[in-house]
Amino acid sequence: MDHRGRLKKLQGVLGENRLDALLVTHLPNVHYLCGFTGSAGALVINEAGAWFFSDGRYREQAQAEVEGCGVVIAKKPPLAAAAEWLIARAAKKRSLTRMLGIESEHLSVAGRTQLARLLRAEFRLRETLGLVERLRMVKDANEIKCLRAAGILGASLFERALEMIRPGVKETEVAAEMEYTARRAGAAEMSFPTIIAAGKRSALPHGRASQEAIPARGFVVCDFGVILAGYCSDRTRTVHVGRISREARRMYEAVREAQRAAVEVVRDGVSVADVDDAARKVLRKKDLAKHFTHSTGHGVGLEIHEAPRVAAGQTEVLRVGMVITIEPGVYIAGNGGVRIEDVVVVTERGYEVLAPASTELITI
Amino acid sequence: MDHRGRLKKLQGVLGENRLDALLVTHLPNVHYLCGFTGSAGALVINEAGAWFFSDGRYREQAQAEVEGCGVVIAKKPPLAAAAEWLIARAAKKRSLTRMLGIESEHLSVAGRTQLARLLRAEFRLRETLGLVERLRMVKDANEIKCLRAAGILGASLFERALEMIRPGVKETEVAAEMEYTARRAGAAEMSFPTIIAAGKRSALPHGRASQEAIPARGFVVCDFGVILAGYCSDRTRTVHVGRISREARRMYEAVREAQRAAVEVVRDGVSVADVDDAARKVLRKKDLAKHFTHSTGHGVGLEIHEAPRVAAGQTEVLRVGMVITIEPGVYIAGNGGVRIEDVVVVTERGYEVLAPASTELITI
Repeated sequence: MDHRGRLKKLQGVLGENRLDALLVTHLPNVHYLCGFTGSAGALVINEAGAWFFSDGRYREQAQAEVEGCGVVIAKKPPLAAAAEWLIARAAKKRSLTRMLGIESEHLSVAGRTQLARLLRAEFRLRETLGLVERLRMVKDANEIKCLRAAGILGASLFERALEMIRPGVKETEVAAEMEYTARRAGAAEMSFPTIIAAGKRSALPHGRASQEAIPARGFVVCDFGVILAGYCSDRTRTVHVGRISREARRMYEAVREAQRAAVEVVRDGVSVADVDDAARKVLRKKDLAKHFTHSTGHGVGLEIHEAPRVAAGQTEVLRVGMVITIEPGVYIAGNGGVRIEDVVVVTERGYEVLAPASTELITI
Repeated sequence: MDHRGRLKKLQGVLGENRLDALLVTHLPNVHYLCGFTGSAGALVINEAGAWFFSDGRYREQAQAEVEGCGVVIAKKPPLAAAAEWLIARAAKKRSLTRMLGIESEHLSVAGRTQLARLLRAEFRLRETLGLVERLRMVKDANEIKCLRAAGILGASLFERALEMIRPGVKETEVAAEMEYTARRAGAAEMSFPTIIAAGKRSALPHGRASQEAIPARGFVVCDFGVILAGYCSDRTRTVHVGRISREARRMYEAVREAQRAAVEVVRDGVSVADVDDAARKVLRKKDLAKHFTHSTGHGVGLEIHEAPRVAAGQTEVLRVGMVITIEPGVYIAGNGGVRIEDVVVVTERGYEVLAPASTELITI
């Protein structure tokens, strides 16, 4: 990955944010900027360069992974190590109060307090919002390749789900087989707890696989993703077990139409709110909009939930290279639910669905 | 679980912390206090009662899980919903500035800024540290039962590892089989990314299973845990593949002796620093202490890393009901490493190792 290019882009926005330096503490941001994948690390970026801080457990890993930065292995946690380094470095130069940006959505209040104490009067802290996330929102060709590969592996798990889903089989048994398949195919882990929600449980938008058995009749929502080479996949398909009522089929087809409608408006220049509205409009016509209780989608990349949010009221505009999920759903408490989801890349020509696959209703 | 008792205990410490109310936003703390296991929730606790906040996706789950609290399902995120509720309630009473505690290690700087804006002059915010974590540190009988069950399931995965570990088998293949076994036995997920670190990679304290094949000769560190009914297990065993050198055997036996020494000092009233020192002292005698680059252990419960830290310089004193890992290790870069870990409960009589099992060297 082009870590040096990313660091350079970030250096390019320090000035317009009136920052002398930025302290990056959110680990996916650290990973994005310098390649480090461990669980303890921080970065300081200023106009002159970038420095990575970790502890002795990660000495070898930092040497192997980190690109484009000086590496400082300290005995203290990365936040304290970075602060001490900043102070020591400031002492060598003429004494001006410098402005240090912090990632306000990720740094804890206690972390900020500690930092302010260590940095004394040498630095003032400025709360920044999403400086690295803005860069991460637009994926480069290598990242899209990774997301495509993750998407293809992720999609293949649905085949295993279809073999497993039968009345009487526990939801966790279905999930276990999918996760095992993923792991054997090289996935590092699942990108979120696998959702297998059958019968009445399908009405729970976040119904992670439970010890409940799949009933003789009803929907089964399967929402699953893998992490492959750092990048996340995310897909949902809903199947029906047993004879399907006319009402349930109508509900399924409405969600399917809403999902397709939202996918089809994706292109450079369209606002995320318009994508959300395209799905909601279809469900409104079918009088099902009030059962669509979440947003239409979210960005996906190194994290399973990234910017932009694809939701009403959001002002972000889609740009070539953005990667989002489109996942409308309808949930009727005590009855059942349907969700259909694909990951979509904004391309020069419009959009590309990653690992495209049929959304036609499958009954078991 | 005794959610009402826990909320009551927390209400009992509000006064001594000069708080009119506490806002709990750290999800494992929310889970501990009221039983909610979803991914969006917050709690407000004052002397009069407790209120839980979530959004529409969790309406059913909150009704099924939450105990001892009023439940507020809002259209806004839980933090904003709690703030608005606090303001609306304050408006009904006589207007005094109230002191609201925030969890400073968990609330982000941006969350604090948003909260301060929403609460205006009606509330002042006070940074609190570990109020709920202090309660969680001492487990009750039900929790220890859960931790023992998780420990037994977790420990059983090592049998599967022993069947799988052979030269040429990929580390991830070993991990995949262990995780599959865990899932089929009812684990919700692994408590952390499974570490299978073979040969030179065994010198990486956090060497999560990679696509590398197990070499013909060397140590294999296996560090793994499950989450069962919400509670985490954590265990490490190290095996040796191929003929073992005298030096490697000496290293293994040193770690084994250090681990046993630390376990044996565990009892009510002993400081965690003394437990750490018991392990370090053994390794010092063998001139291996400089290769023991992390702390001896950590608390374990609803989270895989909880209070107390079992490390030099920590002042916490062990009390009956505390549950900690004891996991010294020795890592020699470019060569290999050994770690041995058990979870230990502080009991009236001294200690109990959860799912006790041999630490004798196994060669494959």
